[in-house]
Amino acid sequence: MTSIKARPISAEEFAPFGELLIPRDVPTRMINEGRCERHHALATVERFGGEAIISILRSEPASLPYSFALLERHPLGSQAFYPMGPDAWLSIVAPDDNGKPGAPIAFLVPAGVGINLHAGTWHGVLTPLDRAADFLVVDRTGEGVNLEEVAIAPVTVQA
Amino acid sequence: MTSIKARPISAEEFAPFGELLIPRDVPTRMINEGRCERHHALATVERFGGEAIISILRSEPASLPYSFALLERHPLGSQAFYPMGPDAWLSIVAPDDNGKPGAPIAFLVPAGVGINLHAGTWHGVLTPLDRAADFLVVDRTGEGVNLEEVAIAPVTVQA
Repeated sequence: MTSIKARPISAEEFAPFGELLIPRDVPTRMINEGRCERHHALATVERFGGEAIISILRSEPASLPYSFALLERHPLGSQAFYPMGPDAWLSIVAPDDNGKPGAPIAFLVPAGVGINLHAGTWHGVLTPLDRAADFLVVDRTGEGVNLEEVAIAPVTVQA
Repeated sequence: MTSIKARPISAEEFAPFGELLIPRDVPTRMINEGRCERHHALATVERFGGEAIISILRSEPASLPYSFALLERHPLGSQAFYPMGPDAWLSIVAPDDNGKPGAPIAFLVPAGVGINLHAGTWHGVLTPLDRAADFLVVDRTGEGVNLEEVAIAPVTVQA
């Protein structure tokens, strides 16, 4: 079985897959008479032919080592996940290789950090670590087939 | 000066202004082989002639009693606020009265509860209570004037 090591997420390494939802070093602008920083448009919602919606996902936890054999993608829209709880979580993504997922990468995401996956990005199912957790999700609804799932050879993520 | 009392938020009382971003009593459906609840489309992003974006606002706190003399609205898009921190916050809204704000209502919102304001809803500036806080914000960008501010006779919110 293929084994990969979870690596700390960074905006640079994650850029091919999407954006991090964290404040920038410098706010875009101050609002509310200087009392509030706006870190503007960290991500734009992709919603080809549909609408952007806000949902909550409540997921049972995974723990490391964690094995998976399925990846999925949403060709018609981006999908943002923001963790509501105090725990780190895992974002598994893979580059596209001629319509199939290439070698997966497992990013360890700290508490308080969200991500936005670009439309069509291969990713694993939601994996909070160690404890169940709620995530605020911003994605797309509308006509069309927006889910593609692919079985892959099993991969294990090590701590 | 007009004085109003902060009241606990409820989905029913907030309905004329927008939606609460909290899990429903029963999830819309189970995903990920039964390991994850999806509470689907708690809110739909309104973004007339524009796009939905995800931002972070980092605001200095207010404390009760809190006085304000300004309300604003965004006619071209909804605006969702999800608190990232462990503290309660205040959502001040007002019904529309012929293009001007009517009598304001101050809702006390617990930690872990977000709101989505419908397009055109009169509201106060962001008011985390007692400690500075970050909020995940989903709203609209695009052409057109999407901010209307109105000075009102001062109102004080009491605990």
